Amino acid sequence: MAKAFIVKGKESRTEYGHPWIFKSDISHIDADIEPGDIVDVYSSKNKFLGRGFYNPKSQITIRMLTYEHEEINFEFLYNRINNAWNYRKQVADINSCRVIFAESDFLPALVVDKFSDILVVQTLALGIDRFKNDIVNILDEIIKPRGIYERNDVPVRLLEGLEMQKGFLKGSFDTLVEMTENGVKFLVDVENGQKTGFFLDQKENRAAIAPFVKNAKVLDCFTHTGSFALHAGLYGAKSVLGIDISEHAVKCATKNAEINGLDNVVKFQAANTFDILREYYDNNEIFDTIILDPPAFTKTKNAVQGAIRGYKEINLRAMKIIKSGGYLITCSCSQHVDSNLFMDILYDAAADAKKRVRVVEYRSQAKDHPVLLASPETEYLKCAILQVV
Amino acid sequence: MAKAFIVKGKESRTEYGHPWIFKSDISHIDADIEPGDIVDVYSSKNKFLGRGFYNPKSQITIRMLTYEHEEINFEFLYNRINNAWNYRKQVADINSCRVIFAESDFLPALVVDKFSDILVVQTLALGIDRFKNDIVNILDEIIKPRGIYERNDVPVRLLEGLEMQKGFLKGSFDTLVEMTENGVKFLVDVENGQKTGFFLDQKENRAAIAPFVKNAKVLDCFTHTGSFALHAGLYGAKSVLGIDISEHAVKCATKNAEINGLDNVVKFQAANTFDILREYYDNNEIFDTIILDPPAFTKTKNAVQGAIRGYKEINLRAMKIIKSGGYLITCSCSQHVDSNLFMDILYDAAADAKKRVRVVEYRSQAKDHPVLLASPETEYLKCAILQVV
Repeated sequence: MAKAFIVKGKESRTEYGHPWIFKSDISHIDADIEPGDIVDVYSSKNKFLGRGFYNPKSQITIRMLTYEHEEINFEFLYNRINNAWNYRKQVADINSCRVIFAESDFLPALVVDKFSDILVVQTLALGIDRFKNDIVNILDEIIKPRGIYERNDVPVRLLEGLEMQKGFLKGSFDTLVEMTENGVKFLVDVENGQKTGFFLDQKENRAAIAPFVKNAKVLDCFTHTGSFALHAGLYGAKSVLGIDISEHAVKCATKNAEINGLDNVVKFQAANTFDILREYYDNNEIFDTIILDPPAFTKTKNAVQGAIRGYKEINLRAMKIIKSGGYLITCSCSQHVDSNLFMDILYDAAADAKKRVRVVEYRSQAKDHPVLLASPETEYLKCAILQVV
Repeated sequence: MAKAFIVKGKESRTEYGHPWIFKSDISHIDADIEPGDIVDVYSSKNKFLGRGFYNPKSQITIRMLTYEHEEINFEFLYNRINNAWNYRKQVADINSCRVIFAESDFLPALVVDKFSDILVVQTLALGIDRFKNDIVNILDEIIKPRGIYERNDVPVRLLEGLEMQKGFLKGSFDTLVEMTENGVKFLVDVENGQKTGFFLDQKENRAAIAPFVKNAKVLDCFTHTGSFALHAGLYGAKSVLGIDISEHAVKCATKNAEINGLDNVVKFQAANTFDILREYYDNNEIFDTIILDPPAFTKTKNAVQGAIRGYKEINLRAMKIIKSGGYLITCSCSQHVDSNLFMDILYDAAADAKKRVRVVEYRSQAKDHPVLLASPETEYLKCAILQVV
């Protein structure tokens, strides 16, 4: 097997367990190697550090698979997937959960979500994509799903030299899958929904809103297919309005309200959150509890300043239309806005809104999306529950 | 009323809601004022900022009570206490909870804990101590406890020019109070226990350990009166050993195990955690789950380096004796070790222990100990649930 040598002095990140080796961290490779091949990683002093898959087309040129001398084969993948599944059985409600969270499960670039008895798979790098058939067989053997769907229609695949594609990997079934999360039913569009069809990372945060929505007048901004809004309905809100800019999302959300028998309490409206928060302020419309779960305002480091302005504005506007003693449940999934920066933004928003604010609880992503201590990139979701006093 | 003027350029912290004004932040006071008096706070440009109580003996010379023109009287205190109680009814199990968390409830230096039907009160600054009788009457009216106990035997009172004292404020009762937390019974020694007798701030974290102790061999270090250990027992641990350096604590913990009928599963031993972790490593004694809930290793900024070494050592040693796939539940209540620093210490510990570690969940203090967004000092508890892979 080819050996890749790390530039002298750049080994410690890998030694401490960070799974990515960038192009600039590699001094040389001692043999011919094809994109997607497995490569051994060595320190500049020829010490074995581990084994990963190689792709010179990606800035992340090597993704580490193991720190042991072990073969990357069916058995290796079986053990990794089995460990991941056992972990979920321990920490998650496996009716619906993320089964594999890529680097955090030591299976770089592999994502598997479970919605009821359907699995959705993404293989987002060349090295892992080569094992797709094995992975599908192992998932089938361990989890025994009714069907498996591939959602590889993701542009990041192009950077890896892979094609964009989607379709059935096992069985053929209605791609509108009904699943339950915290007792709320959802129709998940595994064929055309965003990413794998549903954002499972907020599951525990959605459950955490219960004490703050009971008997409350609730506004849920960026509601997408209604996930927070319907939880609020189930947890006894007096009324819930869910806002999303997409007419299609509002249609899905409305359908989800119906299948939960919540359509009398939970209503949806297609609108721009920035505009509508300003409008409510101008009209003196006040809410008991507001939920902000925006899409990532930035996907790159360069756009962080714009994202900060965006987060500050929606939080400031929301704080202004919450009754005294009411709650703001505010999220960010931008990886480049870390938890310190997010809390600083909320502090600035409170200062500008001239509000006294208490942090009731600070939360992150669900436990089936574990964080690698050695890789801050695996942590991205922030959810603060605030009281506006 | 006397007016205190803030030094020019130092007003924003107060304007944004930080409750402390240091001696060096005050330019002058325009009239005679006695220690403990209420004082109005003005900016250098004579803008009213709020009202607080004054004590020139303390470095925190003014503690803010309100940002409005309102009288600090019985009604004011009644509303503050009532708001605090209503908040707990919404977010906490009020069988046992912190009823008032000082600055975070806009009642600086006042702490009230509820253990079953007994309240324990601390008035830790001169300004709030003056209102002690009113506070006791209001607590009695709103919460109707069987009894109220004063735990003002705290050295910080001496710095405020107050005496150290403890005793009954309402009724007279057995000071060993039985209370229930997450279904576990505890005898709380409100007369001689640490602080108010029991650490309520870990309540939600203790509940969070359930998935990580079932059928497990558990070691609970710094167990004090057995709180985490007994939760592990209740949640189905195969065996639990609780360690504390204090023979008295071990005796209390053992008694608590008995009243829960858990004395067959949960055992306690008086020992030094640092020594015993080393001993277990030398003897190859392995655990499924280890809990570390040490007392604050530092109470001052100057001693942070020593605290960092202490945290790193216990975490490193614990990581080394956890089986692969097992869990480390690790806490810090040192205010001067913030969450970033704590996670950095854990990263260093994992690197030195040569372990791959995943963050399953990051938690803070219970919701009845809210954090003021404007005052980072009100956040102090960190609890990371880690998996050692």
